[in-house]
Amino acid sequence: MLDANLANKSHPQQRTIVQLSEQVALGDREIVIIGGPCTVESLAQMEAVASVVPVNALRGGVYKPRTSPYAFQGLGVEGLEILSSVRRRYGLPVVTEVMAISQIETIAAHADMLQVGSRNMQNFDLLKALGQVDKPILLKRGLSATIEEFVMAAEYILSHGNSQVVLCERGIRSFDTYTRNVLDLGAVVALKQITHLPVLVDPSHATGKRELIPDLSRAAIAAGADGLIIECHPEPEKSVSDARQALSLETMVELIQSLNEIATAIGRQIHLPKLQVPAMAA
Amino acid sequence: MLDANLANKSHPQQRTIVQLSEQVALGDREIVIIGGPCTVESLAQMEAVASVVPVNALRGGVYKPRTSPYAFQGLGVEGLEILSSVRRRYGLPVVTEVMAISQIETIAAHADMLQVGSRNMQNFDLLKALGQVDKPILLKRGLSATIEEFVMAAEYILSHGNSQVVLCERGIRSFDTYTRNVLDLGAVVALKQITHLPVLVDPSHATGKRELIPDLSRAAIAAGADGLIIECHPEPEKSVSDARQALSLETMVELIQSLNEIATAIGRQIHLPKLQVPAMAA
Amino acid sequence: MLDANLANKSHPQQRTIVQLSEQVALGDREIVIIGGPCTVESLAQMEAVASVVPVNALRGGVYKPRTSPYAFQGLGVEGLEILSSVRRRYGLPVVTEVMAISQIETIAAHADMLQVGSRNMQNFDLLKALGQVDKPILLKRGLSATIEEFVMAAEYILSHGNSQVVLCERGIRSFDTYTRNVLDLGAVVALKQITHLPVLVDPSHATGKRELIPDLSRAAIAAGADGLIIECHPEPEKSVSDARQALSLETMVELIQSLNEIATAIGRQIHLPKLQVPAMAA
Amino acid sequence: MLDANLANKSHPQQRTIVQLSEQVALGDREIVIIGGPCTVESLAQMEAVASVVPVNALRGGVYKPRTSPYAFQGLGVEGLEILSSVRRRYGLPVVTEVMAISQIETIAAHADMLQVGSRNMQNFDLLKALGQVDKPILLKRGLSATIEEFVMAAEYILSHGNSQVVLCERGIRSFDTYTRNVLDLGAVVALKQITHLPVLVDPSHATGKRELIPDLSRAAIAAGADGLIIECHPEPEKSVSDARQALSLETMVELIQSLNEIATAIGRQIHLPKLQVPAMAA
Repeated sequence: MLDANLANKSHPQQRTIVQLSEQVALGDREIVIIGGPCTVESLAQMEAVASVVPVNALRGGVYKPRTSPYAFQGLGVEGLEILSSVRRRYGLPVVTEVMAISQIETIAAHADMLQVGSRNMQNFDLLKALGQVDKPILLKRGLSATIEEFVMAAEYILSHGNSQVVLCERGIRSFDTYTRNVLDLGAVVALKQITHLPVLVDPSHATGKRELIPDLSRAAIAAGADGLIIECHPEPEKSVSDARQALSLETMVELIQSLNEIATAIGRQIHLPKLQVPAMAA
Repeated sequence: MLDANLANKSHPQQRTIVQLSEQVALGDREIVIIGGPCTVESLAQMEAVASVVPVNALRGGVYKPRTSPYAFQGLGVEGLEILSSVRRRYGLPVVTEVMAISQIETIAAHADMLQVGSRNMQNFDLLKALGQVDKPILLKRGLSATIEEFVMAAEYILSHGNSQVVLCERGIRSFDTYTRNVLDLGAVVALKQITHLPVLVDPSHATGKRELIPDLSRAAIAAGADGLIIECHPEPEKSVSDARQALSLETMVELIQSLNEIATAIGRQIHLPKLQVPAMAA
Repeated sequence: MLDANLANKSHPQQRTIVQLSEQVALGDREIVIIGGPCTVESLAQMEAVASVVPVNALRGGVYKPRTSPYAFQGLGVEGLEILSSVRRRYGLPVVTEVMAISQIETIAAHADMLQVGSRNMQNFDLLKALGQVDKPILLKRGLSATIEEFVMAAEYILSHGNSQVVLCERGIRSFDTYTRNVLDLGAVVALKQITHLPVLVDPSHATGKRELIPDLSRAAIAAGADGLIIECHPEPEKSVSDARQALSLETMVELIQSLNEIATAIGRQIHLPKLQVPAMAA
Repeated sequence: MLDANLANKSHPQQRTIVQLSEQVALGDREIVIIGGPCTVESLAQMEAVASVVPVNALRGGVYKPRTSPYAFQGLGVEGLEILSSVRRRYGLPVVTEVMAISQIETIAAHADMLQVGSRNMQNFDLLKALGQVDKPILLKRGLSATIEEFVMAAEYILSHGNSQVVLCERGIRSFDTYTRNVLDLGAVVALKQITHLPVLVDPSHATGKRELIPDLSRAAIAAGADGLIIECHPEPEKSVSDARQALSLETMVELIQSLNEIATAIGRQIHLPKLQVPAMAA
């Protein structure tokens, strides 16, 4: 792939394993399930997820890239503190989006992986700055980024010093309005063949329709994805953003439990954490 | 979906089962594997496939839709006779493309399922004529057909009297040139939810790159496809068309054998026929 | 362009001029305006257009490619007779769509140019049959046809013996739902540079919104198009199809009158016929 | 358009006029021509352009968004000083791209308009910061941004306090590789109808092929664009970036001279500055 010297495999078996915590590693034999709401709304909301859904890591946006400047832009630092609190109590790594260089330091102090959203995939100054961070970066594919552009965006981070990059396919733009985007699992297969980086799949943004998510989650694992990042919410219909694509916690639990058989069928496995009584009182 | 009265499910469990032969049914619990070359080139070529690869049905084009009028347009009737011969000897149903109303009768006399190619998905007069044929129709999704247009194309066939329609997702056009098309497994999931028709996946045309086909085949089954239609060739590099996407027979055999575990993981199965000594001499 | 031996220019000044009638030629210095309703609905409707709007030729569909089999499919032969009648009375050439080989002979007896719609651009058997017709063919670009595929589709007609092919850009599929399609005037410029064939622009289907049509019509002429094919209707809101994109006759007249200045600015001209008292009684 | 309260027209005749200098205004009756190289390479290069090509403003990138981190990233501050020098000597306003919040202050000290590139169209933190700058902002449409997303991106800048926003259509992603992107003049027409902001067209990035630029420039003006931003280079084939799309200075001069007739045809005009002897020695 062009001159992606650092992202390209130097030999077919090369792979990078990215640790989110002592227990959770991306890119290894285990498939990692990341779940949570689109937007962090409250501590109660995040605890509801963490206490009911057996995921390997939590997601939740506190800085939100919204099409309209008048839409809710996220809780910001207050949201980060909620993430910190849940992370500590439930012993789960957390992932959240970074939108600007000025946010990096604060987010890195609270989160275990920093997400670059689709709209910033070619925000090159942000990528360069994240190259100097000592935290894993979850790089989402741009809305209409080619596979080559996607790999080269990862190369920006790698070449600036951060080797912990995780790629995430989240659907691309197409002419069809039935789904929000088109999940490109061919890209997942290609990225696994070309690069040594872990590859996640986000079926929630890919489809925008919750009823399509379980089947596509199974397909993503069968295609070779190293993990899934799925939106779920205690009350999906009340979600402040992307309500149409959030799974209920019940559906999320069922879905997760169904994944192990697919993982096993391709020689991998899913290690679900036991649901925990919070490590300490709030 | 619009007014797709016949294609839409009237109740969630409704499903149409399409028989290709006494042994082979599409849309049932069993997943059907269809394989063969892009183009029928010779009897020896087709026999090489039928005798080595354990598929449920054979594919092979004899009327070929080619971008250039100067490209090889297929063997025509001679190709049909080759298909007939292999079908008889190996006891395998065959699928081949119909491009014009004038070809229907002849093809229907030789083949077990008539394929409508992507470029003809909205050739409405052809669809109407196929509505009066007593053979299953394999309808491939147009290059940039929406899910709604695809279902409505099926509705044309159904409303003209033929209830044996099989849908086939084969990749859609996108901005990325890395793969020939983008396989849209979200559409497969949607079609299974909306309609009662069997849905196949063609990972060969979807990607145009043979190295992506095995993983996407497994993904397609995990997504809920009722079968796969895959191109393979005794000497892929010598294929008269689409050489870059044809699997070698060895890879095809390996791939097929790997699929059963995925099928089992989602509660389905693959019944591979035993490779046969030809039923009679040529 | 690939092996488009017949469509490609053999020298930079080569151009094909296609005569629609003694007075109307496509591809020459004069820019040709074709107008009329999406669908022929009645003689009164067609006469209303012909008597009010000063166009060089009339359009109107009698065989209609509709997404749904339950939508109105056109008046068929009755519509052809209406076209014939208006053509005779007003001395205007007419253009209408052919969808099937079986319709060619009848349509050719009534129309001055046969249109191949976007959905049939790669209906190769139809193209081959039209290669043997002694009438000009208006070939519309497929919904997501590349420029190369478009030129090669023309090559099918040319190579089967018909040299009177007119290309028509009518918008391509994109991710944006604001307009029905995206008008690709870059393709018009490219086609004029690559091929010697006349190139029309259909701003009606390209945008699907009548308020965008006048400005895009002027842009099309400035880009070098040899003519326009525009939908207009005596009562746009009552049109049986594509009502949202039809111009009222008043707007159509204004638009046409505004075009001459643009044509002059690039060294071309528009010769509008005088509105005629019908040549004879019906 | 959604809740684009500030970008939407409050009455049909509303329009915003953005002054680049005392002489140059965007959005008024005069059409503005901006020209220059993709990348500022040297003072000699910029002077060669400014002394030969009669443009209303100069463009030239000093911070370059490049797909690969190993590609030339621009001259940075040295480039800004070159722009400043040429601006002073030739009395021409200059436009250059800003990629990061940290660059805003320095660029604003040297340039008359700050450009947000396609890849940053939804870099919302950058947009918010530019909302507080007292300089015009040239906002380029994202690679696959819908018209609504484009307008809402402008709304970010407007709602943070900067009313001087200029929109720029520069081609969108499509399936066809013949041109680099597809110029969407329908979007230009729509943006002029929906918003009161000036709209520019960049035919260079839209096509990526210099031979298509003159005809599309004329089409853009006919469509109603308020100006053009075109790449030209003293030695196109030696350009450090986008060489294939840069016009030679000779072609650029010819093109500019041809535009006035089109402008006149739609009731507008182009006021070309006299080529100047530099205002003072270097």
